[in-house]
Amino acid sequence: MFHRHPSFSILLSAVLLSHLHSTQAADFCVADLTSRMTTTGYTCKNPTNVTADDFVFTTLVRGGNTTNINKAVAVPGFVQQFPGLNGLGLAVARADIEPGGAIPLHTHPAASEMIYVAEGSVTAGFISGAPSNVVYVKKLNKGEVMVFPRGLFHFQANTGEEHATVIASFSNSDPGVQVVSSALFGNDFSSFLVEKTTNIDEAEVKKLKALLGGSG
Amino acid sequence: MFHRHPSFSILLSAVLLSHLHSTQAADFCVADLTSRMTTTGYTCKNPTNVTADDFVFTTLVRGGNTTNINKAVAVPGFVQQFPGLNGLGLAVARADIEPGGAIPLHTHPAASEMIYVAEGSVTAGFISGAPSNVVYVKKLNKGEVMVFPRGLFHFQANTGEEHATVIASFSNSDPGVQVVSSALFGNDFSSFLVEKTTNIDEAEVKKLKALLGGSG
Amino acid sequence: MFHRHPSFSILLSAVLLSHLHSTQAADFCVADLTSRMTTTGYTCKNPTNVTADDFVFTTLVRGGNTTNINKAVAVPGFVQQFPGLNGLGLAVARADIEPGGAIPLHTHPAASEMIYVAEGSVTAGFISGAPSNVVYVKKLNKGEVMVFPRGLFHFQANTGEEHATVIASFSNSDPGVQVVSSALFGNDFSSFLVEKTTNIDEAEVKKLKALLGGSG
Amino acid sequence: MFHRHPSFSILLSAVLLSHLHSTQAADFCVADLTSRMTTTGYTCKNPTNVTADDFVFTTLVRGGNTTNINKAVAVPGFVQQFPGLNGLGLAVARADIEPGGAIPLHTHPAASEMIYVAEGSVTAGFISGAPSNVVYVKKLNKGEVMVFPRGLFHFQANTGEEHATVIASFSNSDPGVQVVSSALFGNDFSSFLVEKTTNIDEAEVKKLKALLGGSG
Amino acid sequence: MFHRHPSFSILLSAVLLSHLHSTQAADFCVADLTSRMTTTGYTCKNPTNVTADDFVFTTLVRGGNTTNINKAVAVPGFVQQFPGLNGLGLAVARADIEPGGAIPLHTHPAASEMIYVAEGSVTAGFISGAPSNVVYVKKLNKGEVMVFPRGLFHFQANTGEEHATVIASFSNSDPGVQVVSSALFGNDFSSFLVEKTTNIDEAEVKKLKALLGGSG
Amino acid sequence: MFHRHPSFSILLSAVLLSHLHSTQAADFCVADLTSRMTTTGYTCKNPTNVTADDFVFTTLVRGGNTTNINKAVAVPGFVQQFPGLNGLGLAVARADIEPGGAIPLHTHPAASEMIYVAEGSVTAGFISGAPSNVVYVKKLNKGEVMVFPRGLFHFQANTGEEHATVIASFSNSDPGVQVVSSALFGNDFSSFLVEKTTNIDEAEVKKLKALLGGSG
Repeated sequence: MFHRHPSFSILLSAVLLSHLHSTQAADFCVADLTSRMTTTGYTCKNPTNVTADDFVFTTLVRGGNTTNINKAVAVPGFVQQFPGLNGLGLAVARADIEPGGAIPLHTHPAASEMIYVAEGSVTAGFISGAPSNVVYVKKLNKGEVMVFPRGLFHFQANTGEEHATVIASFSNSDPGVQVVSSALFGNDFSSFLVEKTTNIDEAEVKKLKALLGGSG
Repeated sequence: MFHRHPSFSILLSAVLLSHLHSTQAADFCVADLTSRMTTTGYTCKNPTNVTADDFVFTTLVRGGNTTNINKAVAVPGFVQQFPGLNGLGLAVARADIEPGGAIPLHTHPAASEMIYVAEGSVTAGFISGAPSNVVYVKKLNKGEVMVFPRGLFHFQANTGEEHATVIASFSNSDPGVQVVSSALFGNDFSSFLVEKTTNIDEAEVKKLKALLGGSG
Repeated sequence: MFHRHPSFSILLSAVLLSHLHSTQAADFCVADLTSRMTTTGYTCKNPTNVTADDFVFTTLVRGGNTTNINKAVAVPGFVQQFPGLNGLGLAVARADIEPGGAIPLHTHPAASEMIYVAEGSVTAGFISGAPSNVVYVKKLNKGEVMVFPRGLFHFQANTGEEHATVIASFSNSDPGVQVVSSALFGNDFSSFLVEKTTNIDEAEVKKLKALLGGSG
Repeated sequence: MFHRHPSFSILLSAVLLSHLHSTQAADFCVADLTSRMTTTGYTCKNPTNVTADDFVFTTLVRGGNTTNINKAVAVPGFVQQFPGLNGLGLAVARADIEPGGAIPLHTHPAASEMIYVAEGSVTAGFISGAPSNVVYVKKLNKGEVMVFPRGLFHFQANTGEEHATVIASFSNSDPGVQVVSSALFGNDFSSFLVEKTTNIDEAEVKKLKALLGGSG
Repeated sequence: MFHRHPSFSILLSAVLLSHLHSTQAADFCVADLTSRMTTTGYTCKNPTNVTADDFVFTTLVRGGNTTNINKAVAVPGFVQQFPGLNGLGLAVARADIEPGGAIPLHTHPAASEMIYVAEGSVTAGFISGAPSNVVYVKKLNKGEVMVFPRGLFHFQANTGEEHATVIASFSNSDPGVQVVSSALFGNDFSSFLVEKTTNIDEAEVKKLKALLGGSG
Repeated sequence: MFHRHPSFSILLSAVLLSHLHSTQAADFCVADLTSRMTTTGYTCKNPTNVTADDFVFTTLVRGGNTTNINKAVAVPGFVQQFPGLNGLGLAVARADIEPGGAIPLHTHPAASEMIYVAEGSVTAGFISGAPSNVVYVKKLNKGEVMVFPRGLFHFQANTGEEHATVIASFSNSDPGVQVVSSALFGNDFSSFLVEKTTNIDEAEVKKLKALLGGSG
């Protein structure tokens, strides 16, 4: 009965019903991953089908497989894996790094990153373009936090004796990732142009292309 | 004839015609409310079907029905009611408050609000989180304006003797609204958790749930 | 006593005190108008000196003087007059227009505008650049609302028989304003260039420069 | 083989494959011009169909036809002509101006503009709303650059002896354009309202309407 | 020697030196907390004095004191505590909750929040304004992640048997926080207005004001 | 005399004068490069001291010196060199490249880039992170335009027979720049960590550090 529904939003609802243009209004926009992307993310899932599970991501309970030449693995919780993040300006990832391993040098074109060391310790850092080519590097222990500004090269290496787990958060639900070695050597970027634009010796370029699955 | 159409935009049009990829370019984006939402609003109505009426909203000529326990009512002109606002960073609402009535304490998660007292007087205010829990409250007379910063609790009460009408504008075409009492008591939020997270006594919680249509 | 202050924010405050770097954190940023501007507004007034009055603007209770050739006047409540708006994405103005008068054609380079007719009626409209040079015009009565998209030419004329009062809100605390006739004729813009870039006859340009206080 | 694919992004890819929700993630959003617009641009073309050609625009190699009463022409490379720009915050145009010609006074409602003189020289300028109606004008030679702040009236005139070519870039992939003379005289904006809102004499208004293809 | 410094940035530096206007350019803006705030954060510390330590935050290695009536405590790493975050769109916090305890219902006016359960388990949730007053609640175990959309009421309760630790990240370096019970009862908000705008019984209001340090 | 100053802005000015809080309002914010930076740029120069020259940049009339191992040079017109750009979302640069030369692989952390070939021809391209490590490369002739999305590796090489000149514009007045080879080899980034995080052989790292002025 109306007298028992006095709140503003319920009154609003009543008014809204009489104008019944749309039932889509929502304080969130869970991604419909089957939709085409726009410049700002995915189209929203119908809010009447959204449940608490859309806002929960359980994949990071376990890390990925570190049996690879980097002895490290990253598991993303970006909007493509965790659709509830769409439009909320946040993403998450978990990195596991064995002693002697490292997450390769990379950038996120669309996000700053903040890491929290959940287990073990890591040597982490980033390089700035301005001031010119300064390396900001620090050994982080369990519970410590470091931030890497948007778009800059950064890395985490396990220089300790035990397994390290890092939880990363990002300032964008779709941060993107560009790995330096993969961008240079893991594709068909011509060896001639790689050398010309990085000064890395052509023989080294060809060796790394062979190692990282590239060609050309 | 071309010589009589010398302006830049007409020349532009001529060039555009020869590239005929799209006729959609427009300086506005009237919402197609039958479209699915994106993170930034609705898909645009075809601009060739847009008329002046799309930019006009006549619902606020009259206020809503104040015969309820709050003796107050708010009528929104958000993008769902006024599709011409889509993407323009503005919305509108009209509140009518009888003497002794009040628009309940609420927030707009996505907008600042500015009110103009069109008729009568109201005691209005908001509460900040920083500085901690300060109440900024003021009695406003006809013609006076007050602003409530984004995301903070605010209210308007009619502490005068005559009917009050308030016109509110918002810094977002879809401001959202969250009413404190409805969020706590007007749903199935478990009484146990309400008490645990607000310190409000469970008996009071149950009483208000009964009053405001909640359960649990 | 601490046990009586259990809330999150008070606990936060306690933690904050032990790190006493800054007492400036605030949910708002009232403009210190004596400060230099930045690209996004003014420096904030110290929040400890902020009171409810900073969020209230009383100037619009009365309109300005309409005894001028436009029979109209606009009184702004932009951040320069209403410092509490700084950073909140809203501004306000009041226009008063006598029968036969008009607010001249103008644009706001940095804001969309929404008008509410508080008294009388106005014929209002805007012109789009895309679609090309379409005029969206409508007669608005008391209580009706119209929106003008950002950066487009718009106007309000009183084509009725009684005084009209309009309350405008804007999607930016510093909308700016550029009046067509003043930009063309109310300054030292050379008559030669005005004619060359608008096709308006030089004699007419010189006549309007004389009327509107321009030279050159 | 997995050991030869150690990079973060390849590991990411492996993880992504196991969650196969979407293959759309991309660092760009080439416009699908057949899609409906949103408030922030077009829906993205499927990234698997994108090639280098989507990021290249060759139309500006030649200028448009300057045989018109302005002796000038502008050719746009906005998102509607150059879909690779969608969401990237940039657009381009080329203007060609014969001696004695001019690009008419206009604004871009959604972008700042920066011009580079590629050939010849131009007298360029803009008018500010604040400070009130100041004209910032300068003769620019080949290789010089000038910027016009967002939403303000600006123009380029060829006051030299040789053909001038200007390359313009914009801070938005869809800057929009509103030409002063076309908005006033190149449409059905009523002569009565033009005079009322600009103080331009009705006879002059009618003459320019005839010249510029307007009516009313 | 110049021939040994061929990179673009070093060439840039050479050019920059000849224009020596400013040495402040930097890819980050570590907050100078002694500066006055602007609408978008703090003035930057001189980048030449910035070291890796500015990007590291060690306070969260340990939790705060949970001996209080909530049996819970939150320790923030917002820009006021962790100045390296300024302008990067991220903040962090650590919450510790004993069995039976809870972080009270609150909102962050300027940020979405994402939590990672580092230890134990929590029952967490948020309430939407649209759809109306829906409670999205879930029990989260160690390693699970949940996101709370910007500006909505949310909470975490420890309904398990062991100590819980939660790491939260935010989509803004200065998220703000508004606690429902503190805003209502922990200040001088008049009991009359609290009752009027929330329907909570005046006796209950007075009781909670006594409990939470409020008056009025 | 007032009757001769009828325009809105002049009326506004009259009203503003009676509230004389600030004379700083302006439609632009020319950088005061002696001011400290904020998260969004520099403090504005007093607008009363601004002239047309503040919006003009003449440095790009000539290219820099290409006598270096890259046979190429870039001259920036970022906000630090061209203060009028502050807050306008645009920057400019000129690159000159001799046959066989190249602008090294680099990223702009804060901007998309669009190039216009003003003279000669260049082979230009960028590499995406998503889709994974795709190289988008194209030979561009005089008058052609290419865009590089924000934050991605890109380059320009002169594979032709004549001098090439490229004019670049950017979607931010302070784009930043990070050169791959300089970030890896032109600083004190430890050779051990470079090898660990890029798979480039330590001997090659040390050779390039010697070449590019690095150590460690």
